Amino acid sequence: MPPGGSAESVIFSRRDLDFLLYEWLDVTALTARERFAEHDRETFDALLDLAEQVATEHFYPHLRRSDLNEPTFDGERVHLIPEIGAAVDVFAKTGLIAATMDAEVGGAQLPVVVADACFSWLMAANVSTFSYPFLTIGNSNLLLAHGSPEQVDAYVRPQLDGRFHGTMCLSEPQAGSSLSDIITRAEPRPDGSYRVFGNKMWISAGEHELGENIVHLVLAKIPGGPAGVKGISLFVVPKFLVNTDGSVGERNDVVLAGLNHKMGYRGTTNTLLNFGEGKYTPGGEPGAIGYLVGQPHQGLSYMFTMMNEARIKVGAGAMALGYTGYLKSLKYAKERPQGRPPAGKDARAPQIPIIEHADVRRMLLAQKSYVEGALALVLYAGKLLDDERTAPTAEERDRAHLLLDTLTPIVKSWPSQWCLEANNLAIQIHGGYGYTREYDVELHFRDNRLNPIHEGTHGIQGLDLLGRKVALRGGAGLAALAEAVNATVSTATAAGGELAELAGQLGATVERIVEVTAKLWGTGDPDVTLANASVYLEAVGHTVIAWLWLEQALAAAGRQGPFYDGKRAAARFFYRYELPRTAPQLDLLASLDRTTLDTDPAWL
Amino acid sequence: MPPGGSAESVIFSRRDLDFLLYEWLDVTALTARERFAEHDRETFDALLDLAEQVATEHFYPHLRRSDLNEPTFDGERVHLIPEIGAAVDVFAKTGLIAATMDAEVGGAQLPVVVADACFSWLMAANVSTFSYPFLTIGNSNLLLAHGSPEQVDAYVRPQLDGRFHGTMCLSEPQAGSSLSDIITRAEPRPDGSYRVFGNKMWISAGEHELGENIVHLVLAKIPGGPAGVKGISLFVVPKFLVNTDGSVGERNDVVLAGLNHKMGYRGTTNTLLNFGEGKYTPGGEPGAIGYLVGQPHQGLSYMFTMMNEARIKVGAGAMALGYTGYLKSLKYAKERPQGRPPAGKDARAPQIPIIEHADVRRMLLAQKSYVEGALALVLYAGKLLDDERTAPTAEERDRAHLLLDTLTPIVKSWPSQWCLEANNLAIQIHGGYGYTREYDVELHFRDNRLNPIHEGTHGIQGLDLLGRKVALRGGAGLAALAEAVNATVSTATAAGGELAELAGQLGATVERIVEVTAKLWGTGDPDVTLANASVYLEAVGHTVIAWLWLEQALAAAGRQGPFYDGKRAAARFFYRYELPRTAPQLDLLASLDRTTLDTDPAWL
Repeated sequence: MPPGGSAESVIFSRRDLDFLLYEWLDVTALTARERFAEHDRETFDALLDLAEQVATEHFYPHLRRSDLNEPTFDGERVHLIPEIGAAVDVFAKTGLIAATMDAEVGGAQLPVVVADACFSWLMAANVSTFSYPFLTIGNSNLLLAHGSPEQVDAYVRPQLDGRFHGTMCLSEPQAGSSLSDIITRAEPRPDGSYRVFGNKMWISAGEHELGENIVHLVLAKIPGGPAGVKGISLFVVPKFLVNTDGSVGERNDVVLAGLNHKMGYRGTTNTLLNFGEGKYTPGGEPGAIGYLVGQPHQGLSYMFTMMNEARIKVGAGAMALGYTGYLKSLKYAKERPQGRPPAGKDARAPQIPIIEHADVRRMLLAQKSYVEGALALVLYAGKLLDDERTAPTAEERDRAHLLLDTLTPIVKSWPSQWCLEANNLAIQIHGGYGYTREYDVELHFRDNRLNPIHEGTHGIQGLDLLGRKVALRGGAGLAALAEAVNATVSTATAAGGELAELAGQLGATVERIVEVTAKLWGTGDPDVTLANASVYLEAVGHTVIAWLWLEQALAAAGRQGPFYDGKRAAARFFYRYELPRTAPQLDLLASLDRTTLDTDPAWL
Repeated sequence: MPPGGSAESVIFSRRDLDFLLYEWLDVTALTARERFAEHDRETFDALLDLAEQVATEHFYPHLRRSDLNEPTFDGERVHLIPEIGAAVDVFAKTGLIAATMDAEVGGAQLPVVVADACFSWLMAANVSTFSYPFLTIGNSNLLLAHGSPEQVDAYVRPQLDGRFHGTMCLSEPQAGSSLSDIITRAEPRPDGSYRVFGNKMWISAGEHELGENIVHLVLAKIPGGPAGVKGISLFVVPKFLVNTDGSVGERNDVVLAGLNHKMGYRGTTNTLLNFGEGKYTPGGEPGAIGYLVGQPHQGLSYMFTMMNEARIKVGAGAMALGYTGYLKSLKYAKERPQGRPPAGKDARAPQIPIIEHADVRRMLLAQKSYVEGALALVLYAGKLLDDERTAPTAEERDRAHLLLDTLTPIVKSWPSQWCLEANNLAIQIHGGYGYTREYDVELHFRDNRLNPIHEGTHGIQGLDLLGRKVALRGGAGLAALAEAVNATVSTATAAGGELAELAGQLGATVERIVEVTAKLWGTGDPDVTLANASVYLEAVGHTVIAWLWLEQALAAAGRQGPFYDGKRAAARFFYRYELPRTAPQLDLLASLDRTTLDTDPAWL
């Protein structure tokens, strides 16, 4: 691969990453911070090259095959196509599992923003195979933050080496969005361990034979604890017990009850797991052996440390699927001849490539504005994660934390909604061909349909944004966001011309959001405040993306060439076709509409 | 089944059909017309009962199985699961294939609007199995309209009996949206027959062994004819030649080159067919034997007689999939307990059914407003077809023709876009379960994704509406639509109260559409006029559905009970959440935006 990556990739765009990382976010400046002092642009570039190479050579080639040959369960063992394990092993050997982790555990201490850029390649190439390392990373981060040193040694280090893999076990058949209703119980034993009994649903990568062991992180209730979320604790429950010398020992009583068969993400096993059903009796006793992580009853708060990161990663996955679909439909639109221009139709003239049709360009510009907007959002969130941890002053760190906290529901939900729509448009550009399994785009659409559901549905994100985040610290969450947007508005206004025009439109929208939010919170009735929280989420989401497009237009200002012209065109498109969608949404919110509240279920 | 149908069906809603047919469209009045004189409400009801029964007992049970076991081709024969053929045979025995056809050919002379209501049940139960009779009906209608009496005897009668099945062969690998580019050729022979050579792509039901024969209707060019669409002729090309006594004879040279593997609609074979490739030499000569239908070079206009009907049927299929998804998600929302209300959360209280959450009701109301709006549109179009053929005066027939012609792109595209969105919401309501193949909704979403593509893409419908239909006869198309809408506005204004409020909103939107259309047509540059034709299509589509919701609210006015309250709630929802979407779209159109025109393909 040439330095700077392949210009022709339909998996992802190195050119766009370079623009966003170096020309917009100036991530090289992060190397001035102690944590990143070992890095420079060269090491960043080398890792981006590596990610592209692994994505292209090891993750992409089995994309269709893993969809067509989903995992099977013969009652005893789960079977995956071998390419999945091979790719996961190659990825582990790159060391990227520990990319952002401390040097002390063998990590590369890479900025999150750069690691996210690397991971985008893998997700765009094969999101379903990347789920395995993705979960391993999340699991390890959680244990590094809250586990004991012994737990780190026993369960994290082997995950970073690629020997073990990880899961997150939250949902149960009767408790998905409502985690307070989990009934899995963990009974304490005299030796300090626990015995876990219950069923966990929707567990991705819950069973497979990719490595030596699977480390489950399980939410469960210790009998006698408080009701609801306050009684939830977190446990490590390994598939095989780990001996004191680190070797893999006895089988624990975690048993696959069945695989879920999904519309997409088919390379990832998705499981119903039984804990303590009695198939195995480790140590001669019933129950799956589990070890408490941190303090009792703090499980959900520990999990939320990671949940925010997981939500950002869901947005990143949605973005990556949207992005690769865009690139594929762009290539198709440039190559597929069909039809003639509206003016001067002559049936004897040769057909033109479909990109020459205005409506096809509309669908390409829409996709571009969605997927490049979403990538900017994801990388900006990664940068905020870095700032929250490593910015020089406490004030900057606090501001980054507040802004990230506020933006998280948008980072999760906006790409999940609009990059799915991008995939929809990518199919449409392919016409009948796009509806067949000969092209990737129908798979991306199916894969991406998961993202508005897992890690908190769209509705849950709306409640989180309007019900909690914008109200944080007496409204400081929204104020921080408005302040950040208005800073961009000021710069763009000063720049004049089209940038000032876009700034005017954005400034007015933000002002309206602040007004509408005050009105919603002024009702004093949470049912009314939150009745249209999803609509609020969508309006604020579009405004945030408009902001990031103005940021990109500013970064492209004065630069010549088709790449920068494309950034300007996409920004213009977003402000003309997309941002105006928020006006009727904000009007609806301002009217404190009660239609959904007042509709009796019996009328439906 | 009780008279009036099952109240609990999750396939389709007899209650809603009864409301729309009898309380709104007053279809019983049609029996005063000579063509329908043999009918009365009783015969209509009996056929609706029959359709529900066949749908429920013969089409629905193999829905999932036909998706999971798509047709296979062993190189010689195509294999379908046997339930498909069994259902198709049961349907043929009902006589509904000839439901709307003349008594002279054995038809029931049922009004199209009632037949469409019947067919909705079948499509909602299993759209993919219904494709076979659907194509047979379209094929027969075309031959009845344009074929010779001998062609009717040889190819139509056996289709109406269920012995033969039909197809439509338009597209080719290089000619989809642009039919002028087909290259299949038909060479005349001295006996008046033709020999056909070429490849046809995307042919639904192009190969199977359901009956004795397949009747292909094929667009091809006779050498020496005019270029472009003016040189297209229509041919009957049977899979097996038909002997003079009506029996099935020699194999014709129509050969399956391969099956397309699709995201959905998997029970329907979708094929690439080779005509005259040389595998067979019927009559000892190369080429597939074909028979000219009607006059040479008139093929596309004949096909368009039926294309309009086919486009309406695509909208009907999209509606049916949206509708059944709505009913299933409604049932799920009433039964699935999860979470608690925002006010007064108490973890010890039992969970509430998710329909109690405002956001879930929002998703249900959105679906209801889309699918019941689309059903009203489809039935209204069916009624216009009846009026165009059988209304008492020439003026009424002409008005119906003009209105139907104008509405056709909307009937095709609006349900394809918004009932797909309804299916998206149905999945969302099911949460993780909705993403699995254990529930129907993910299949409906996959099936429905076809509808914005086939029978003219969304983009093609936009060009048809703005480029041709609204401009028909110097603008009479749009004028007829505006007049019809304004008549409803007047009635609702006079009714006062909430109806008058909705009427005000609708009247203003229609006025704006008329203004914007004039502005678009005033540019004198077709590139600018048509640059945002898809946006125009969407804005006019939403306005038409708003109109039909006002019509439904008027039909429900003064009636008590949850059914009518539901109609009022859905109308209100559509006017508050949906119709306002048109404002920014119409603003964009009024600005004669050039973003898509001015974006150089090299920037993308």
